[in-house]
Parts: sequence; C-alpha cells; structure tokens
Amino acid sequence: MMSESQKTWQPHYARREQGMRASDIRELLKLLEQPEVISFAGGIPDSALLPTELARSAYQDVLSNPKTASQSLQYSTSEGYEPLRHWITQHMASLGIGCRPENVLLTNGSQQGLEFLAKLFVTPGNSILTTAPTYLGALQAFSSAEPVYDPCLGDHSNATPEACRKYAAALSPSGIPAMAYIVPDFANPSGETLSHTGRLELLRLARELEVPLIEDAAYTALRYDGQPIAPIQALDLATCGDINRSCVVYCGTFSKVISPGLRIGWMVAAEPIIQKLVLIKQAADLNSPLINQMVMHQMATTSFDSLAAKAREVYAARRDVMLEALSKHFSDQAQWSRPDGGLFIWVRLNQNIDAKELLRIATTNEQVAFVPGAGFYPPESARKTADRQTTIEMVKTNTNGRSNFRLSFSQNTPENIREGIRRLRKALDRLI
Amino acid sequence: MMSESQKTWQPHYARREQGMRASDIRELLKLLEQPEVISFAGGIPDSALLPTELARSAYQDVLSNPKTASQSLQYSTSEGYEPLRHWITQHMASLGIGCRPENVLLTNGSQQGLEFLAKLFVTPGNSILTTAPTYLGALQAFSSAEPVYDPCLGDHSNATPEACRKYAAALSPSGIPAMAYIVPDFANPSGETLSHTGRLELLRLARELEVPLIEDAAYTALRYDGQPIAPIQALDLATCGDINRSCVVYCGTFSKVISPGLRIGWMVAAEPIIQKLVLIKQAADLNSPLINQMVMHQMATTSFDSLAAKAREVYAARRDVMLEALSKHFSDQAQWSRPDGGLFIWVRLNQNIDAKELLRIATTNEQVAFVPGAGFYPPESARKTADRQTTIEMVKTNTNGRSNFRLSFSQNTPENIREGIRRLRKALDRLI
Repeated sequence: MMSESQKTWQPHYARREQGMRASDIRELLKLLEQPEVISFAGGIPDSALLPTELARSAYQDVLSNPKTASQSLQYSTSEGYEPLRHWITQHMASLGIGCRPENVLLTNGSQQGLEFLAKLFVTPGNSILTTAPTYLGALQAFSSAEPVYDPCLGDHSNATPEACRKYAAALSPSGIPAMAYIVPDFANPSGETLSHTGRLELLRLARELEVPLIEDAAYTALRYDGQPIAPIQALDLATCGDINRSCVVYCGTFSKVISPGLRIGWMVAAEPIIQKLVLIKQAADLNSPLINQMVMHQMATTSFDSLAAKAREVYAARRDVMLEALSKHFSDQAQWSRPDGGLFIWVRLNQNIDAKELLRIATTNEQVAFVPGAGFYPPESARKTADRQTTIEMVKTNTNGRSNFRLSFSQNTPENIREGIRRLRKALDRLI
Repeated sequence: MMSESQKTWQPHYARREQGMRASDIRELLKLLEQPEVISFAGGIPDSALLPTELARSAYQDVLSNPKTASQSLQYSTSEGYEPLRHWITQHMASLGIGCRPENVLLTNGSQQGLEFLAKLFVTPGNSILTTAPTYLGALQAFSSAEPVYDPCLGDHSNATPEACRKYAAALSPSGIPAMAYIVPDFANPSGETLSHTGRLELLRLARELEVPLIEDAAYTALRYDGQPIAPIQALDLATCGDINRSCVVYCGTFSKVISPGLRIGWMVAAEPIIQKLVLIKQAADLNSPLINQMVMHQMATTSFDSLAAKAREVYAARRDVMLEALSKHFSDQAQWSRPDGGLFIWVRLNQNIDAKELLRIATTNEQVAFVPGAGFYPPESARKTADRQTTIEMVKTNTNGRSNFRLSFSQNTPENIREGIRRLRKALDRLI
C-alpha cells in the first residue's frame, strides 16, 4: 500500500486527451501581459468602455430592495431570469426575429451555448460544417463532442448536400453532417460578412441536410459601415413563418457591448430545442448567477443602445486607423480584410512566412503581438481518411493558415495602433 | 423549398436523448411553488440566511475602486481569481489538506466541477463507482459522458477491485472502472457519513483500481454533532505526502454556507489534473464571472466562519425538530437516518408503498411535499447485460428506492416542520 501510493499517481485519461488544444496560444497570450508590449492579440472589449458606474448602481438596487436581495443570491431557474429573456425577445424583434421567452435560454456567455449545442447535436465522428478559418473558441467548445470538420462554408463556397454527405462518410464510418456553424457578421477572425445571397444558400443547404444551423451573432451590434444584413434566423422565419419551425439557433451575447465579465449570452431557437438545452444547462451547472442576470436586465433596459453606439464610435475610429497604418506599412507585403464591423482584421502575408515565427520576433524584438492564423483552422482530421478528390481539395483549403494572422483593434489608442503596426513591419523586415 | 421548410423541422437529436432524466422531478418541484404547500423538497439554504447586506457592501467596494471596477467586468482567467484560490488553500489547510493555488480550480458551483470530471475521466460505457442512493445532480452531470454505474460504495460495502472490474466488464465491452464518486459527510440524500475506516477502505480500492476518487464535500461545513472525520483527500495526503500525488479530487462549494446564487464551487487536485480541467473550463465557458469571485473573496475572508456557525445553529435546531416530529408520527411506519449534519433526512417506509404515489396524495390532499427516492438511484444499465451472480446482487440493491424519500429541514420554521410532518402522516394514512 505504502509503496503503491507513493508512486506518482496517474489516471487513465489518455482516452480524453484528444480535442484539447490551444494551450500553446494561451501561453503566448500570457507572455503578452507585459505593459510595454502593444498587443493586438486579445479580441476583447476595451476595459475603459465597461459601464462600471451603471453596474455599481444596478447591484446596489438589486441588493437594497428586499424583494430582490435574497432572491438574487439564491438558486434560480436553469432557463434564466424571465425579465431578461423578455428583454431579449424585444431585441430579437428589432432584428426581424419574432420569439417568446420560451424560445430563449441564457448561458454563461455564448461560449457555453456553443458547448451545449455540440453536446445536443454532435456524436463523435459526426461532421460540423464551418468556415475556415473560424472562431477558435467554437472549435474548443465543440471538441469534447469529438467531431470532424467540413470547412466548406462561406460566400464563395460551392458546398452541396451531396458533397457534404460524401465528405462526412469519407471521414469516419459514423460520419454524418450534424450541424453547421457560422459567424455571419464581421467574423472572428476573418472580419468577413456573409452576403444576403450567401445566407439564403446556407439556409437551403442546412434545410436539405436537415441539420441545425448555428448563427453566432457575437459582433452583430458592432456594425460601423453599410446596411445591416438580415440575420439568417430572420430569413428562415420569413420562409417557415414560426420560430418553432426554424432550423436556426441564434447565439447572442452581452459581452461585446455591455460586459464580458458578467458572462451572459443567449440562444434563441425552436422551443423543443430550448427545452433540451435547458436540461443540459441544469446538468452542467444548475443555473447562471441570478444576481448578474438581474443587473444585466437593468443595464440592458436603460443603456444597451447607448453603450452599443459608444462602442461603435470608438472601435470604428480604431479600425480606420489600423487600416490606414496597414496601407502605409504593409501594402507591398500583405493583403487584409476591410471589415464593416467587429473587432478584427485578418492579414495574409504575400510570402510563405510562418506567422508563429513572426510572432516570436515581434514579441521578443519589437514588443508587439497578434494571434497567428493556424489556430483558427479546424483540425485536419480529414487527412487520415481522405480518398476522394473533393475531400482532398477541401483539405487543401484547410491548411492555409500558416502565413495569416489576426489583429484586433479594440484595445489600443490610435497612437498605439500606429506605433504597433510600424513595429510589426520592423519585425517582418527581420524575416524577409 | 417552400413546402420543405414549412414542415415541422426535426433535427437528428435522438442520438443524444439518452442520459437526460429528472425532468419529471423538475415538473413536480414546480408544482410545489404554491405558498400554502409546506415543502421539504428543495435541498437549498434558507433564503433568510443569505448575507444580502454583506454582498451589497462587497459589490459596492469592488465597483467603487478604480483598481478593481473595470477588471471585475472584463474577461478573466479560466482557473479563477487568484486571491480566492489562495483563500481556499488556507481553508483546505484547516481541513488537513496542504495545497497551493495551482491545485485549485474555481467552477460555477461544484455542479460544474462534477460535469468536468466526467468529461475528463469517463468515456461512454465506463463504470462509475458510487453509492446508491447518491446525489441526483451528480447523476445528471455525469450523464453526458454516458457511463454505467456500479453502486457498490458505502460503509457496509464489500467491494473489491476484482468485483468492480468484473462488474464493469459485464456491463459493456469497453467497460472499465473510470472513477469513484462519493459524498462522505451527511450525504445528499441519505444523510449518512462515511466512517474513518470506510474512507481508508475506499481509498485503497481507488488506488488499486487506479481510478480518481471524487470527494464531494458539499455539506462538510454543516456538522452539528460529533467530531469531524478527516476528508478522504487528507487521508490520502497522510500516506502519499503530496497533493500532486493524490488520487482524490476534492469538490467544495460556497453554496451551502454563503450563497448558492453566486455559483462558486472549487476543485482541489494534483496539478496535472487541474491543468486539464482548466482547459475544459476554458472550452466550456471561458471563465466564471470575476466580479462574483471578487465579492466572494471579500465575504469569505471576513465572514465564512461566522456564516457557517449561524447556519449550523439554525439548521441543527430544525433537524432536531424534524427528528422529533418523525418519532411522534412515523415510529410505527418508517425508519429514517439521524444525520450529524447537512440538510437531509432519508426515510424508508416499512410497507412497500410507492413514494411517488405518496407524493401525489401529499401535495394534492395535504399540501406537503418531499422528493421521492427513486430518482437518487443510478440508472439500472446493469440489468441489460448482467449475467453473473455478483452483478445481479448489486443490481438488486440498486432498485431499492421505491418506498424511500428525502426530507429537507433547511427551509422551514420549527412550526412548519411539525405541521408538515403531521400532514405527511395524514397523507400516508390515506394509503395504508
């Protein structure tokens, strides 16, 4: 007994190692916390815009009122605070989506919602249709369901139901297309927006495959130019006429406009789907903190629009400065997206330079940081079993991230953005 | 296209239906929200004990201080607020468990921790060693990993590694024992406490099977009588000498002593395990709300001990009243546990009466409620494949819940407890 227990104890968890990645990116991001580094890495709101006074007063209100004080610190319902779900139905109506509180589930940020959706819809070996690149956090959220990826979505895709089925079947014996996932507005990391036509085509594809379509609308409130394009769920409702017949699950969040730290996102879907997700929520953590939901309800009711307007004003100016600085320093060496909103610009170097190597030089020699592109590409499970021409072609587009990287313009002043892009060019010059 | 999309849309999610249960119990609990019903059902702290003024002042402090205000509303680390993890190391030291903040992960209540542990350790078809009955929420948390259960743990168990391996193998081809789960102090629902000897035997079993042992210490701070028994993790450390060699994962929570609504629990384990759980946390919801962790840190630092003492005083008196009322009304019809702490008394009717039927009568005719026992028993996956005598015997003990039920004494005044137990006997009289 003694000698047994004094060995380093090792559980059998090799069987769950797969699917966990991005720890190297976490390490990188930690390195960047030095104050002298100009970081374009984190895709998070500017802390200076967070409504601390509004929050202070809302917590004060909830905890001073005997009707809400105890309730706010007690267990609560898994589906979330009804008045906040009601506010969300009004917000959704303003986007062209008619729904009731029964169609809304509150989650710990939309990240938790993405994880629940994989749990509900995906069995190991099933394929998820997505763009490449796509949101890194979604790949992490989906990973415990052990999917394979079909990176076929996007505006210039020629994905057909037949090709998707074939691809899924080629990847694993149990492989069927299980769901589709897209960030239609100002995507993380690409900054791209799916066109109206692209949305209709994607909807048709999902309908024909009978898969749920996950619309991650994290950045939708942050449009700086041009006219809004209807959400995919609104287009679906225009045809099927009823949220309870919709195949789209809309994921929204308060993180980009009000506060990421309260961890409140939402999903809007047909009631039978929400009911199943509520049980998943109950099993996962019983409920989200009610006090934060009450506070968020108060802040959203009084200030969602003004906070969104302020964020748009600040970030639009920063985007413009970054685009200008890129034109000045990178025109001969790269191409980049010109996003109509959101927080990100996606850069593709003309030369075959490893963005991870550039990051190493940039952080150690020039004190500027960003996120290399490779992590945003779905894992290439395809390679193992690919045996058809279509599959192999798709896999090719799937390995494109090496010379790409993501810049976020949300957290730096215009001066720092100009200086950071200048430094970044200096770092690149050390490699070319 | 039109006709296609106007059909009720139905995704393929039958493949994930399994493992979701307890919705019927949820429905029951909803029925009980009528004010005239005396409910012994919910196992939650008394709202009157929640520290609303302490919380108000802590939120005020965090949001008035420019150093913490913005930070508290921003994204934060997946492992949780360092000062709170540090406080937890001191709390653990007082229980005989030496650890560092690197051994601590904060979660959304310990419920989220249980779900992460199943994700890390359990693959579909693996067996989880547990007691029967056991915590319903744990069964729900583990369900998405699709385990089978070996209900062999407890003080009068004669579980051996050989029997556990045999049982696992009999249940499914891939079946191996994957982890052990127990609530050692004043368990939910049984009220039972595992003896010192029982803890050592359980530890030896886990060591020999090389499985992690999950110690759910939800109620440990609520001991009303007798001397504390060392946590299983403390016993493990006494032998192996180092938390990083421990096979025990300790799950603690602030929910029973300070506030369930802030949703803060913790896990203490060897650093390699915590590092993997941090990645699971990151994928699941990025991080828990930092503001709540800062507020909890302030409340725990100033008031954990006094809040725990107050809770013990109130609940001990209510336990005594309930035991007295049971003696008065149920001595001829039932046996029950006499817990040294926690929130629950477990009642076994002498006659073979369905506790669900009793609940129906109790709520409709006598306006008193409780939770029937059946839901606390692991699902009987054993039956399908059982072909050995040992297996079959175990399964028998597994179906014992029909005439049992759980009473919680935490939320009612002594007067209501006396009246409620009197009503409950009247309900029983309608059935015997």
